[in-house]
Amino acid sequence: MEADVLVVGAGILGLATAYHVLSRDPEANVLVVDRMGDVGQGATAKSAAGFRAGLFTSSTNRLLSDTSVDFYLHIQREEGYDLGMELVGYLILRTKEQFEEIADVAHALEKRGTLKIYRKAELKKMLEMNYEFDGDEEAEILGVKNVDYGLFGVKCGYIDADKLAYYYRDRIKEMGGNFQFNTKVERIIVEPEIKLGIPREPRAWQKVRFAGVETNKGTLKAEKLVIAAGGWTHLLLDPLGIDCISKPKKRQIFTFRPRTEAQKALLNTKGFNDEGILPFTFLPTGHYIRADRRDGTFWFGFSDEIRPFSPDEEPEENYYYDNIYPIMVKYFPQLEGARVDNMWAGLYMLNSVDHNPVVFRRSNMVVATGASGSGILKGDAIGRIAAALLYGETYADLYGGEKIPTNKLEVVGRSLETESFVF
Amino acid sequence: MEADVLVVGAGILGLATAYHVLSRDPEANVLVVDRMGDVGQGATAKSAAGFRAGLFTSSTNRLLSDTSVDFYLHIQREEGYDLGMELVGYLILRTKEQFEEIADVAHALEKRGTLKIYRKAELKKMLEMNYEFDGDEEAEILGVKNVDYGLFGVKCGYIDADKLAYYYRDRIKEMGGNFQFNTKVERIIVEPEIKLGIPREPRAWQKVRFAGVETNKGTLKAEKLVIAAGGWTHLLLDPLGIDCISKPKKRQIFTFRPRTEAQKALLNTKGFNDEGILPFTFLPTGHYIRADRRDGTFWFGFSDEIRPFSPDEEPEENYYYDNIYPIMVKYFPQLEGARVDNMWAGLYMLNSVDHNPVVFRRSNMVVATGASGSGILKGDAIGRIAAALLYGETYADLYGGEKIPTNKLEVVGRSLETESFVF
Repeated sequence: MEADVLVVGAGILGLATAYHVLSRDPEANVLVVDRMGDVGQGATAKSAAGFRAGLFTSSTNRLLSDTSVDFYLHIQREEGYDLGMELVGYLILRTKEQFEEIADVAHALEKRGTLKIYRKAELKKMLEMNYEFDGDEEAEILGVKNVDYGLFGVKCGYIDADKLAYYYRDRIKEMGGNFQFNTKVERIIVEPEIKLGIPREPRAWQKVRFAGVETNKGTLKAEKLVIAAGGWTHLLLDPLGIDCISKPKKRQIFTFRPRTEAQKALLNTKGFNDEGILPFTFLPTGHYIRADRRDGTFWFGFSDEIRPFSPDEEPEENYYYDNIYPIMVKYFPQLEGARVDNMWAGLYMLNSVDHNPVVFRRSNMVVATGASGSGILKGDAIGRIAAALLYGETYADLYGGEKIPTNKLEVVGRSLETESFVF
Repeated sequence: MEADVLVVGAGILGLATAYHVLSRDPEANVLVVDRMGDVGQGATAKSAAGFRAGLFTSSTNRLLSDTSVDFYLHIQREEGYDLGMELVGYLILRTKEQFEEIADVAHALEKRGTLKIYRKAELKKMLEMNYEFDGDEEAEILGVKNVDYGLFGVKCGYIDADKLAYYYRDRIKEMGGNFQFNTKVERIIVEPEIKLGIPREPRAWQKVRFAGVETNKGTLKAEKLVIAAGGWTHLLLDPLGIDCISKPKKRQIFTFRPRTEAQKALLNTKGFNDEGILPFTFLPTGHYIRADRRDGTFWFGFSDEIRPFSPDEEPEENYYYDNIYPIMVKYFPQLEGARVDNMWAGLYMLNSVDHNPVVFRRSNMVVATGASGSGILKGDAIGRIAAALLYGETYADLYGGEKIPTNKLEVVGRSLETESFVF
C-alpha cells in the first residue's frame, strides 16, 4: 500500500509534521516510520527539554519558539493534557563582559517583560554559589569566570519530552495516522516523474520524485515524503546530493541525586519561581545545571566545540569528570563529591550557519532538521511549516495566528538574522 | 621541523594562499602538502577552467572573479607568463522565459559593457544549430528547449589550469616555499594552547590550536594551518566538528575531436571572438560545449542535480551517452555520431547555501573551500582573503586595490547575496 504522506522519524519534528498534515488533510493516509520502538525515543528523549519564549534575538527564532511554547501551554492548560511543563525560568549567569555584549538586547527584552536582569548583589541573596575567582589560578586554567549578572527568562523552563511525543502520537492515532516502529530507513528511492522504461532511469535530464524508502523491513512507498530523521537526516540526503547544512553532535546529560543538606538546599533554591526550585541555570562557561522537580535530581550538561560530527549516542562517564564536574564544583562548592547517578547522550543536529532550523522542499519531499538543540521548543512551528510546504503553500499559520513564509528556513539563498542570544 | 604555515592542498586555492602568504611574509617557512605528485593535479586539472568577469549578480562573486581574472590577465600580458588564457567569450543560450527571469540583470550588465544580448535572428546568422523544437516530442522528453536569446560575456573564456598552477608553484618556490607531494593528509592534530600534561587533553574547557597534520608519511607540525583540500576538506574537518558547509560532487568532462567538415565548421564558428572559434557555450538545459582552440577538440559537460556527495573521481562513459549526447545532438545535429575520445572527472566543492566560496578561521587554522566550481576563476582573490585571515587582518587587499572584509565568506552568520546568474 502506498501512503499519501510518509514521515521518516518519530521525533518531535516528524510528529509535529504528521500531526499538522492530518489537521489540514484528515483524509490523508499518513505513516510515520522510526527505527525505535515508540515515538520520541531518539534525540527527543535524550534532550534536556528546556524551553524559552521571548529569549531570542533572531525574530525567526523568537516566532518559532514563542508560538510553539504557547501551543504547548495551551495543551497543558486548556486541553488539560499534562506535558510536564515547569515554568521554573532560565537563569543565565554572565560576566560583566558577556553582559555588555548583549546589554542592548537584554534591556529590550526586559522592557518587553520576557527578561529580568539581576545584579550580583541581588543574586547573592538568592543563590548560594561562588561569584568571584580573582586570583584563583585553577579557576583561570578551567576558564571559570566571575558571575556579575543573572538574566532571568520568565516564560522559560522545561517540558517532559516523552509526554509531548505521546501527545502528538495519540492525536495522530486518533486522526487515523499509522506508525511503523523498529524499522530502519536505509535509503530514499528516486524515480523519474514520467517513467520511460529505459535503462539507468532517472537520467539526469528527467524530473525526479522521491517515491518512498527502502528499510530493513522492505520498501515503503509514498505520494509525499517527509524526512525528519534527526542525526541521520544528512546520511539519507547525501546520496541524493541534497545538502541539509546540518550535522549531528553528541550532547550528554549527567544526573546526580543530592545527598547533603547543602545540595538539597541548592536544588530547592527559593525566590526565582513559584516552584521554589533552582531555575534552569547557565554558567558563564556554557555549562548548565537543571533541577528536575519531579525526580529531585540535578541534570548537568555542557556543549563542547571540538566534537566529531557523528551520530554516536554513547555517553562517556569520563566526559563528566573531565569537563563538567571541575567547573561545576568551582561555582557550587556544595556539589563537592557529586558522582554520576545516571547519564545518557543524544544528538544536536547543528546548523552552523545561523542555528535556525532548516526546512525545505525538493520535488515531493520536505526535509525538517537543523534545529541545533532547540527542536522541542520550536517543534510545533517547524511541523506547521513542513506540513504547509508539503501542501505547496507559501505561508504557514503558526499557533496564535501569526504567519511565516514557508521558504524562510530554506537552504538556498538563506539569509536569517544571526542569533546573538546564545549561552 | 615545524613550518610557519602548512598548506594542505596544492590546488589553486592552496597555491594562491601560499603565494599570498609568502608575498606578505617573505621570511615565513611555508610548506604545501598534497596527495598528488605535483601541483594542481586534483579538481584544478579536471576543471573546464572557464573564467568570467562581470557575469555575476552577487557583488561578492563579481569582486572575487573580476579581480582574479584581472590578476591572471596581468600575469599573462604584463609579466609575459603564458597562462593559456583565451578570451573566446561565454555564450549563454536562453529560452524566452529564462531570459525574462534575468532580463533586468542582463540589461544592466549590457550597459556596463560586460554583456552583449543577441536575439535569435542575429544568432542564426552566426551559429549553425537548431533553435526551435515545437512539436518535437523527443525534445520535450529530453527537456530540450528553444533558443531565443544568446547572452555573450565579453571578458570570459578559459584558462590553462595547469599553467596557472605552475605559475603559482614557481613563484612559491622562488620565494622559498616548499612542497611535499605524494603525501596524504589523514587528520588534523588538535592540541591545547597551554599543555597541562593531564590525560585526555585537550579537555573541553581548554582553548585549542591545530598543531599540524598526520599523514601517511608521518607528522607535519606547523604554527599556522591552511586547509584547502578540495573535495576532502569536510572529511578533515568533520572529526573536529567544524562545518565548512561544502560537499563534493563529481563533475565530468568528455572530449571529442571533430571528424566531419560540419563538425570542424562548428568548432571554428566565426563572428563572436577574434579567435574565430565557438565561444564557451551554455545551452538552456545547462549542458555546455567548449571548443578548445589549442587541442582542436570539443569539451562537453553537464552538472547533474541528483548525484551523491562523494569524493568519487571516476568518469563514467555511460554518463555521456545517457545524459549529454542526446541533448547535444538535438541542438547541434552536426555532432551526430560524436563518440567519447577522452574523459575525466573532478570535484565541485559545493556550497549549497549561496554558491559563494567559504573562507574562515578557527584558532590558528584557516579553511578555504566551497568555490562550487569556480575555484580557479576566483582563486586569486580567495587566496588573498585566506592569507589575510591567517595573519589576523580584518580586510584583504584584492588585485587592483579593492578591499574585502576577511569575514565576508565566514560560515557563521553568513548572509551573502544569492547569485541569480546561474547557468
